[in-house]
Amino acid sequence: MYEPFLQRAIALAIENVNSGQGGPFAALIVKDGKIIAEGANRVTSASDPTAHAEIEAIRQACRVLGNFQLSGCDLYASCEPCPMCFGAIYWARPDRVLYAASAADAAAAGFDDAFIYEELRCPPSDRRLSITQLLHPEALRPFQAWLSSSSKKPY
Amino acid sequence: MYEPFLQRAIALAIENVNSGQGGPFAALIVKDGKIIAEGANRVTSASDPTAHAEIEAIRQACRVLGNFQLSGCDLYASCEPCPMCFGAIYWARPDRVLYAASAADAAAAGFDDAFIYEELRCPPSDRRLSITQLLHPEALRPFQAWLSSSSKKPY
Repeated sequence: MYEPFLQRAIALAIENVNSGQGGPFAALIVKDGKIIAEGANRVTSASDPTAHAEIEAIRQACRVLGNFQLSGCDLYASCEPCPMCFGAIYWARPDRVLYAASAADAAAAGFDDAFIYEELRCPPSDRRLSITQLLHPEALRPFQAWLSSSSKKPY
Repeated sequence: MYEPFLQRAIALAIENVNSGQGGPFAALIVKDGKIIAEGANRVTSASDPTAHAEIEAIRQACRVLGNFQLSGCDLYASCEPCPMCFGAIYWARPDRVLYAASAADAAAAGFDDAFIYEELRCPPSDRRLSITQLLHPEALRPFQAWLSSSSKKPY
């Protein structure tokens, strides 16, 4: 039952390379046994570093459903999601994730996200990324505005 | 030199709550001392779980520059980025990240991404997310297509 959807994701990933649209990655979202959204990597063609296949498929599925949550949906990806896409998956909350190639397979083809996992496991002060916290007391003002807002829409 | 940009991000985050557009988060991208892109959280108003402030600002800056890399740019965020946004930051490669509120401040206001960090630190088999790998040998075909493509644009 899962394989045809993963085979479709793999076929889309190959098509994406052959059409020159982007990297060898595709993903799709299935709800009630039907594909409701498909996405492929568009980083180079859209000049968008966030346009990974999973993000594209999640955004498209949410547009279709008019909802920012994907409960009741499964995400199929031609490859194991990177940390950015994992984060997006946790926020979108699909029921399940199924994938084909491993992160190690992607790394062997030149797509290596291991350094991002390593950085996220480090305490911020040990990261290679230059990251600085400033203006701490003022920083709380948006949260104060949120907590006192009567028109907020929690998510 | 950094504070006015962070103050602008904080002001945008407050504005975003007051206008009902989304959560209390904003971010902006600065290049050569000038703001080239701004973004605020649009999760609920755009029905898009990936529409965090940092992702919005990165996508907008890349559109402005016509590039999928933000080298020479700094990212300012009203709050410490979540794992999804951290992933996006690593892919976009700005020179520096500056932020105001901490993840703990966000958690105190109801925005808790600690569970995502915990999940990313777990081996996949120990994660709460249902995630399954299937179809391994077929999964390599997109990478074979990529490696043998003469028209690919590496990123």
